[in-house]
Amino acid sequence: MSKTEKLAQHLEKLKINGMYRDDFYWTWDKTDDELDAIFTVADALRDLRERNISTKVFDSGLGISIFRDNSTRTRFSFASACNLLGLEVQDLDEKKSQIAHGETVRETANMVSFMADVIGIRDDMFIEEGHKYQKTFMDALDEGYEKGILEQRPTLVNLQCDVDHPTQSMADLLHVIHELGGVENLKGKKVAMTWAYSPSYGKPLSVPQGVIGLMTRFGMEVVLAHPEGYEVMPEVEEVARKNAAATGGSFTKTHSMAEAFKDADIVYPKSWAPFAAMEKRTDLYAQGDAEGIKALEKELLAQNAQHKDWCCTEELMKTTREGKALYLHCLPADINDVSCLDGEVAASVFDRYRTPLYKEASFKPYIIAAMIFLAKVKDPAAMLKLLEERGTQRWLQA
Amino acid sequence: MSKTEKLAQHLEKLKINGMYRDDFYWTWDKTDDELDAIFTVADALRDLRERNISTKVFDSGLGISIFRDNSTRTRFSFASACNLLGLEVQDLDEKKSQIAHGETVRETANMVSFMADVIGIRDDMFIEEGHKYQKTFMDALDEGYEKGILEQRPTLVNLQCDVDHPTQSMADLLHVIHELGGVENLKGKKVAMTWAYSPSYGKPLSVPQGVIGLMTRFGMEVVLAHPEGYEVMPEVEEVARKNAAATGGSFTKTHSMAEAFKDADIVYPKSWAPFAAMEKRTDLYAQGDAEGIKALEKELLAQNAQHKDWCCTEELMKTTREGKALYLHCLPADINDVSCLDGEVAASVFDRYRTPLYKEASFKPYIIAAMIFLAKVKDPAAMLKLLEERGTQRWLQA
Amino acid sequence: MSKTEKLAQHLEKLKINGMYRDDFYWTWDKTDDELDAIFTVADALRDLRERNISTKVFDSGLGISIFRDNSTRTRFSFASACNLLGLEVQDLDEKKSQIAHGETVRETANMVSFMADVIGIRDDMFIEEGHKYQKTFMDALDEGYEKGILEQRPTLVNLQCDVDHPTQSMADLLHVIHELGGVENLKGKKVAMTWAYSPSYGKPLSVPQGVIGLMTRFGMEVVLAHPEGYEVMPEVEEVARKNAAATGGSFTKTHSMAEAFKDADIVYPKSWAPFAAMEKRTDLYAQGDAEGIKALEKELLAQNAQHKDWCCTEELMKTTREGKALYLHCLPADINDVSCLDGEVAASVFDRYRTPLYKEASFKPYIIAAMIFLAKVKDPAAMLKLLEERGTQRWLQA
Repeated sequence: MSKTEKLAQHLEKLKINGMYRDDFYWTWDKTDDELDAIFTVADALRDLRERNISTKVFDSGLGISIFRDNSTRTRFSFASACNLLGLEVQDLDEKKSQIAHGETVRETANMVSFMADVIGIRDDMFIEEGHKYQKTFMDALDEGYEKGILEQRPTLVNLQCDVDHPTQSMADLLHVIHELGGVENLKGKKVAMTWAYSPSYGKPLSVPQGVIGLMTRFGMEVVLAHPEGYEVMPEVEEVARKNAAATGGSFTKTHSMAEAFKDADIVYPKSWAPFAAMEKRTDLYAQGDAEGIKALEKELLAQNAQHKDWCCTEELMKTTREGKALYLHCLPADINDVSCLDGEVAASVFDRYRTPLYKEASFKPYIIAAMIFLAKVKDPAAMLKLLEERGTQRWLQA
Repeated sequence: MSKTEKLAQHLEKLKINGMYRDDFYWTWDKTDDELDAIFTVADALRDLRERNISTKVFDSGLGISIFRDNSTRTRFSFASACNLLGLEVQDLDEKKSQIAHGETVRETANMVSFMADVIGIRDDMFIEEGHKYQKTFMDALDEGYEKGILEQRPTLVNLQCDVDHPTQSMADLLHVIHELGGVENLKGKKVAMTWAYSPSYGKPLSVPQGVIGLMTRFGMEVVLAHPEGYEVMPEVEEVARKNAAATGGSFTKTHSMAEAFKDADIVYPKSWAPFAAMEKRTDLYAQGDAEGIKALEKELLAQNAQHKDWCCTEELMKTTREGKALYLHCLPADINDVSCLDGEVAASVFDRYRTPLYKEASFKPYIIAAMIFLAKVKDPAAMLKLLEERGTQRWLQA
Repeated sequence: MSKTEKLAQHLEKLKINGMYRDDFYWTWDKTDDELDAIFTVADALRDLRERNISTKVFDSGLGISIFRDNSTRTRFSFASACNLLGLEVQDLDEKKSQIAHGETVRETANMVSFMADVIGIRDDMFIEEGHKYQKTFMDALDEGYEKGILEQRPTLVNLQCDVDHPTQSMADLLHVIHELGGVENLKGKKVAMTWAYSPSYGKPLSVPQGVIGLMTRFGMEVVLAHPEGYEVMPEVEEVARKNAAATGGSFTKTHSMAEAFKDADIVYPKSWAPFAAMEKRTDLYAQGDAEGIKALEKELLAQNAQHKDWCCTEELMKTTREGKALYLHCLPADINDVSCLDGEVAASVFDRYRTPLYKEASFKPYIIAAMIFLAKVKDPAAMLKLLEERGTQRWLQA
């Protein structure tokens, strides 16, 4: 029996009827079975591709991408996922469009979706705004579909909002699952999601939020560490707390990086902006207060600079479980003496983990493809079997 | 018998041999049968797609898009149409190319067309220039094909020029046909194509021109209304006059929005720039007279501001046939108190017509696809039947 | 027997096992058989396409393009080639990505390549940098593939570096072969690769370098002509010298355009920057010396202006073999009184050769496709036969 067949059999046991035609905003919207299904389909699609079997489910159709912030890896991951399933990516570049001329989100959403099957949106710049934009966009598509404007209702893949970054956290976790030899080995493992210094400022909170919102669901001991003033959104902390309580794990907080690293199995040191400051920034932008924004940035950089000691050094790594914790990062990292003078991680640590870090990133296209697949395929287990049986070569061999 | 089969039978009766390998510049270049064929194929392609039947006619090949003005809906409509037929869109972004460095249109046309099957061009900014650019481009491809440089002669879809906007007016009209229950119900209906106030200036004349050039062909009573000074191109008025005479309809002009709306079945209130001013602007640009352009813009905005009363209000709507005229717009509209203080339409009117407006826009991808289909398929009726018979699923079902 | 079948038979006789999964940097890395294979496959792919036979080898997969300089024709040639083989182009636009934020080339290379089959890079702006960038990029992919990060190792097509421009020179030469009636007719022909005046400065050296590095391999008499100070890279001259010695041709240099043109069968008059100045410019950029760069540009333009007499005039053309030498150019050319006052070529000469020039350019998509094909197909002769046998229509006929 092939790996894909086994994975399809596993899929059959999961209750995942709710995923068909559904959007993906946040991992904590989803049941355990639904998350399991995503990991399962991601592995199956990878298995099929590695065996040169086409997984095209669409003969034609568009995947619309909207990046309201710069992006390389997420952009290429989304493009790869769409291509893998047979969709052509069309990027809605707001600079080329008339959106700046006062078009409402509602209208744009319908106008770009007449032949779209999936929408991928990254909007992480402003607290209280990113998710709202995605929700407004998808509500408009609900309405458009109900009223017969759209022949099909495209589904959302959240490519990062102000609250969650599910394609990232799920790719991170699938990497962990593969490194630890199975989801059953997550229980009891200590995860240190910690702030780290970066000479830049204003990095999104959705990465740490995504990690504590997801990793607390598997009975792991999740520690969130950051200097005072670098709190994340309280509602996501609440999600993490509830998850931990439900799965026999824990969610704790500390202001000490050393405490978080102590005996950790997994470390994720990463810079982010303070939530309160990001709220303030959103307000200043809304008011168009350029002077206020400049002043805030200066203040935040000064605040940041007081915490240059929050760096993932060799010394700290030695304090982790057997000195061999799995180091995670969403990339690109700020590496000491490489991309900056002082940064998130010592160059020797980063270099040692380069291969696993790149492997971690390699799961993202498959996680996105699995999210699309499960939203677009009514009977995913049957479809995986059909694709294997069909056996179309992805790369023709003579 | 399926809807597509019926439409294919209708197609067989039309004299449309001239469409194969032909360009689409203006609707008034085309015979009645040819316009009929476009509506027919658009409906058939939509029927097939709604029944999950692939309409890919191309296994590979490029659709080249050239947008010399910002665009969202036309860009996505063209991309959707190409994708539906199996062509991959490649956008010629003049900022990324060497065109600015003195390449002639003739050369560029050939250089991007070696594997292109269709060319979509939007060039509506300058009176006397848009059509000329398209013609120069396509003449170069004629020459390239004749001389054996190109293996195939790509065909043009005019995505808007300074004279006509055929994909817009035909999508508008197909919407009207569906709303009225058939092309046979157009005769005698009153259409008010009227100017409306917008706080911006310089909107293309090709929308009203396209509408009066097309809608006069079906025996409708077309009224063109605008303040003094907002004349459209006289040669297009002449086209409208001749059309009306030939089909037993009428084409009249007025300087009163109220008169145009009175008992109208269809209203299309929309801002555009005065033709004479646009001619002047083209000259100023040619001379590189930045000061002159600024002065002209200021003058035009002041001129515009005298006509803030040209707005599609509830009061005006009440004067239309039974107070229920079909409201049309190419979108985005300038909506009072939404996208601007004073605009083309009252918010309550726009809101009431939002769903039909979006449906109107939904025909554009199919109109473009039909134009490509008819230029690329020798026997369109046979091809529709073949596609249905082939029955390839667009979206694979397990 | 079809043309493709004959070409496939010829291919079977060539020793080209080394091409499978290999990169294409410079023509002088490749054996004579390997270059022959590229011309052969290019002709076969063209024959199949002309007979409406699909040459899609990939069902899905990405072709990544990276243009670190503006480009129209190479961009569209790469897109056409990828589309012809079934790959979807994803452009890595550094302005949209986080590359500017300190990402290393190594990391980016892996991040964009998870589902990529081919990488096309143009990086010709800085002497000593373009090739280095490509090599660093591809070395990273070697590492990524070896370490299991990538499921497949994408292969490189050099779309122009500081040293060679192989897709250009091979398209040029395939054009010459077709014009002369076969590769066997190249021997003894005189080729004048000469500098010509242009009002711009800093054009890449890789075009003349590519030409002298390639055309010396076929027993031709290659003359490189330029004013003093416009030397090309000495290591490429050395390549040309060795090639000529090995094939019974010659490679000579002169400072006289007239001498080069005398009795030439082929002329290639084209502006380029002086090597020494380009080295200096690379250093100034590295130092961020904006003043120095400006001063250098001014100096170079003044230096250029002393050589306005280096122009391909009718008088010079008359001195070539029977006054009918084949005129080559990579386009766009600087044409006297058309794109500039004084340029590389007289308008009447350019006009007379317009059709062959455009044909010359038409080979580039096929050369690129052949490079990809040979790097991706294990048994290219068998694959050509399989594609012909499969007989999938590129453009469906009803």
